[in-house]
Amino acid sequence: MTATLEFRNGVLYLLDQTLLPLETVVIECREVAQVMEAIASLRVRGAPAIGCAGAYGGVVAAMRRADRGLRGDDLANATLRDFERIRQTRPTAVNLPWALGRMKTVVERHASEESDALIRALRDEADEILREDEEANRAIGRYGADLIANGAQVLTHCNAGALATGAYGTALGVIRAAHEQGRSLRVWVDETRPLLQGARLTAWELEQMGVPYTLITDSMAGHFMARGEVDVALVGADRIAANGDTANKIGTYSVAVLARAHGIPFYVAAPTSTIDLETANGESVPIEERRADEVGAFGSVRVAPAGARVANPAFDVTPARLITGIITERGVLRPPFAAALAGAVNAERVDRGSSDSERRPDAVGVEPG
Amino acid sequence: MTATLEFRNGVLYLLDQTLLPLETVVIECREVAQVMEAIASLRVRGAPAIGCAGAYGGVVAAMRRADRGLRGDDLANATLRDFERIRQTRPTAVNLPWALGRMKTVVERHASEESDALIRALRDEADEILREDEEANRAIGRYGADLIANGAQVLTHCNAGALATGAYGTALGVIRAAHEQGRSLRVWVDETRPLLQGARLTAWELEQMGVPYTLITDSMAGHFMARGEVDVALVGADRIAANGDTANKIGTYSVAVLARAHGIPFYVAAPTSTIDLETANGESVPIEERRADEVGAFGSVRVAPAGARVANPAFDVTPARLITGIITERGVLRPPFAAALAGAVNAERVDRGSSDSERRPDAVGVEPG
Repeated sequence: MTATLEFRNGVLYLLDQTLLPLETVVIECREVAQVMEAIASLRVRGAPAIGCAGAYGGVVAAMRRADRGLRGDDLANATLRDFERIRQTRPTAVNLPWALGRMKTVVERHASEESDALIRALRDEADEILREDEEANRAIGRYGADLIANGAQVLTHCNAGALATGAYGTALGVIRAAHEQGRSLRVWVDETRPLLQGARLTAWELEQMGVPYTLITDSMAGHFMARGEVDVALVGADRIAANGDTANKIGTYSVAVLARAHGIPFYVAAPTSTIDLETANGESVPIEERRADEVGAFGSVRVAPAGARVANPAFDVTPARLITGIITERGVLRPPFAAALAGAVNAERVDRGSSDSERRPDAVGVEPG
Repeated sequence: MTATLEFRNGVLYLLDQTLLPLETVVIECREVAQVMEAIASLRVRGAPAIGCAGAYGGVVAAMRRADRGLRGDDLANATLRDFERIRQTRPTAVNLPWALGRMKTVVERHASEESDALIRALRDEADEILREDEEANRAIGRYGADLIANGAQVLTHCNAGALATGAYGTALGVIRAAHEQGRSLRVWVDETRPLLQGARLTAWELEQMGVPYTLITDSMAGHFMARGEVDVALVGADRIAANGDTANKIGTYSVAVLARAHGIPFYVAAPTSTIDLETANGESVPIEERRADEVGAFGSVRVAPAGARVANPAFDVTPARLITGIITERGVLRPPFAAALAGAVNAERVDRGSSDSERRPDAVGVEPG
């Protein structure tokens, strides 16, 4: 599979996800404005992926500012202003401010050094964010695969695959891991209107993995649950609040309500970088409202009457009470989520502050397998 | 508004609903095959509308058979075979077999007469079916409007408007009646994938009525319910089983589950011609499976990977327990539905067997206002 994103020779290469699966086009971002446009228009999307893209966007920012002669504090300040512009491209996924927060710490630490040293440190940090993301996803896959019985029928919404992350995938990473472990499974793929990330991206990834799947419209999920053909629902996340309320692609909430009504477990798979302890609960998550024509038209094909009033929230919030478990790289968190989430995040903080082998899988509320 | 269907000078004129709202094209059906194609490809759709179209298709059938020289029993038998072919175009909506059942009775009654007399009797019966449908819809509108408070936010799925019926509409007829009575209301229009009858047809009808509406993807309904922005859900029906289980456009079931989870009343609006006492419950309703490319492509635009496996049930079944009331031309039926539905249908049988003013609004379980 072509990589979601790659940074080589000072250029951020992004697989243009708006064109998949019909065309495989890699775009080259040499300017911050290009990175911002790519994030805003969903050429790169998925919370962990835009975290990584934002981090590399930060490297590009510093490089271009240095090219234009800025040095020392001037370079640092201009770079931080660019970080802020990148951060504002999309409001809901917390991974973008999270990654840029790490990049900011690097700027502050290296502001007094030569510009080359600053840029190298930023590059190292972005690489580390990407590396950690892939590692986290693989761990999520291992923990999550244990929840998928042989022969399970799994329903997923939107795309939480390799395309949505640095690599491997979160919800789709769980499916991939179960498949790699030889388990037989079948996936119901919600097409995920309006932008059809399920039909375009998840179906494409599953096709490449060789995992059997059936594409359905979002409105069919309840029907197949009622027929007993869904054993587990599995989704990614854009932001998990401190109490476990989870913002994810619009329609996730409906899947969670339907799953509960049918006694089907509903799991969220996300790295701890998606957990935002600063956001108390779902009501505080900013929900991005996107352009009306994403709903009123389909690509270039107009469907609704001209001038139709449209609502287009890109995300919704699933309350913690509807979530069976949150699959992180630290293990599967179970309710009550507040303590478990704080434990998982703090365990991570301890990790990054210490030598890399001091993992804390015994954090509060974490199930280490 | 251009009429959904009209029969003039031996020709069935149908507004081609596959082209709305971008193009307003009226097609002319002079042959049974054209009527069948129009029903099968949804140029005319909606349970009551395909009942009416099927009835006029029956007139066309007898005319063409007579043109080709058939008379007496030969004409009657060939016409009945054509009815059977028309009936098989779509399996779920009961209005099609219901209307053709009425037409069959006319054939049987007039088989020994001159072919002109048979054709005239068939034409009269089809006209009567259309007239009754409009009358029923207006009564549904009156009864249903009483359920819509001033300022209400109503969510509807698919299109149950004038386009789906002979005239006026069922669920949208209720909205129309409330609007005509001067009530302020706002409608959430589910776009209704895969064929977007909400975005294309319901939005178009509401636009013409001047009723404020907001178009959303099907996956947004739960989100707006959770925000307290939906007061009542109102849908049409393709077949109501004897116990109240209701088959309607795929996604209706999810709306009903979501409505229940949020304490929102969920009403079905349908004429008694949609009630099928021969079908004991929802499990016995045949669910039409339509072509994969309706889901895998969007009009002419391919979205899913080539060869993606797709499920495309066109309908689902909402169990009676999730239905607050069924709005018919006899009044609003309330649970337990079995007695109420039988009462409403039997009242209708009494009606049609008697002089037209002997309505029985006091049928068992019927709320006469």
